[in-house]
Amino acid sequence: MSAPMPKLYFEDFAAGQVRKFGPRPVTREEILTFAAEFDPQPMHLDDEAARNSMLGGLAASGWHSCCIAMRMMLDGFLLNSSSMGSGGIEEVKWLAPLRPGDALTLRATVVQTRPSRSKPQLGLVTILLELINQAGAPVTTLQAPLMLGTRAGAQP
Amino acid sequence: MSAPMPKLYFEDFAAGQVRKFGPRPVTREEILTFAAEFDPQPMHLDDEAARNSMLGGLAASGWHSCCIAMRMMLDGFLLNSSSMGSGGIEEVKWLAPLRPGDALTLRATVVQTRPSRSKPQLGLVTILLELINQAGAPVTTLQAPLMLGTRAGAQP
Repeated sequence: MSAPMPKLYFEDFAAGQVRKFGPRPVTREEILTFAAEFDPQPMHLDDEAARNSMLGGLAASGWHSCCIAMRMMLDGFLLNSSSMGSGGIEEVKWLAPLRPGDALTLRATVVQTRPSRSKPQLGLVTILLELINQAGAPVTTLQAPLMLGTRAGAQP
Repeated sequence: MSAPMPKLYFEDFAAGQVRKFGPRPVTREEILTFAAEFDPQPMHLDDEAARNSMLGGLAASGWHSCCIAMRMMLDGFLLNSSSMGSGGIEEVKWLAPLRPGDALTLRATVVQTRPSRSKPQLGLVTILLELINQAGAPVTTLQAPLMLGTRAGAQP
């Protein structure tokens, strides 16, 4: 049994750090289930309609890829951290189709860190998430500004 | 039986147009189901953890609110249009918690329209989506640049 990872605080993040997670296989079934609930455009649900679309074949909703990236970041390190959430997402780019059977790697790069001006127990960590398929092509990228508690602020 | 809405093309959008949809009730069960799959942070899954978080009580994943906004836009007008998809999202802001039992209105405002420089059969329509709760508070906003086919391009 390996020792548990120590919990991550704001102080543990520094610009330029890269963490990688995956591979995470994506099934046709989950693509269809997500699309039916949240993004029922024919190009996400129907093979023939998808072939005739800009996607050139069945592909996941872009929102689905964002949600997969979020889950991979959480499992990768964020659930084991002092994260307090986020006020939004800076930019989402859907760069290549996410196909059934793809296996996704998540690359999480720390873009910048900044202590809170008003709250010493808090810091901001901006993370660039890149979801990359098995061919090495970036599928989705997004930039998330996260609020993390400081180790100093967590002292009793 | 009312006549079906005519299909919307690029030419039917103009900056400043506002469309409203909803209300769309959100249940505790769907908040928990989404969070368990994509965003299992305690503040989205557990009442007590949520009370002690910045959210001050159980609230949906911000990604869930984006997905609900997407579905409302599709049902509202986008499925009945020449939309070809989108290359991403310009900015997502999570402004207020989305609580179990909230009823959401979607306000979709056309920010700008622009014909494609290279493809006469295509145009770009940037839409601001604002998801507003029953108290009138904006919960989530995002800006989506959509590609739409032109009516001229659809002529045989």
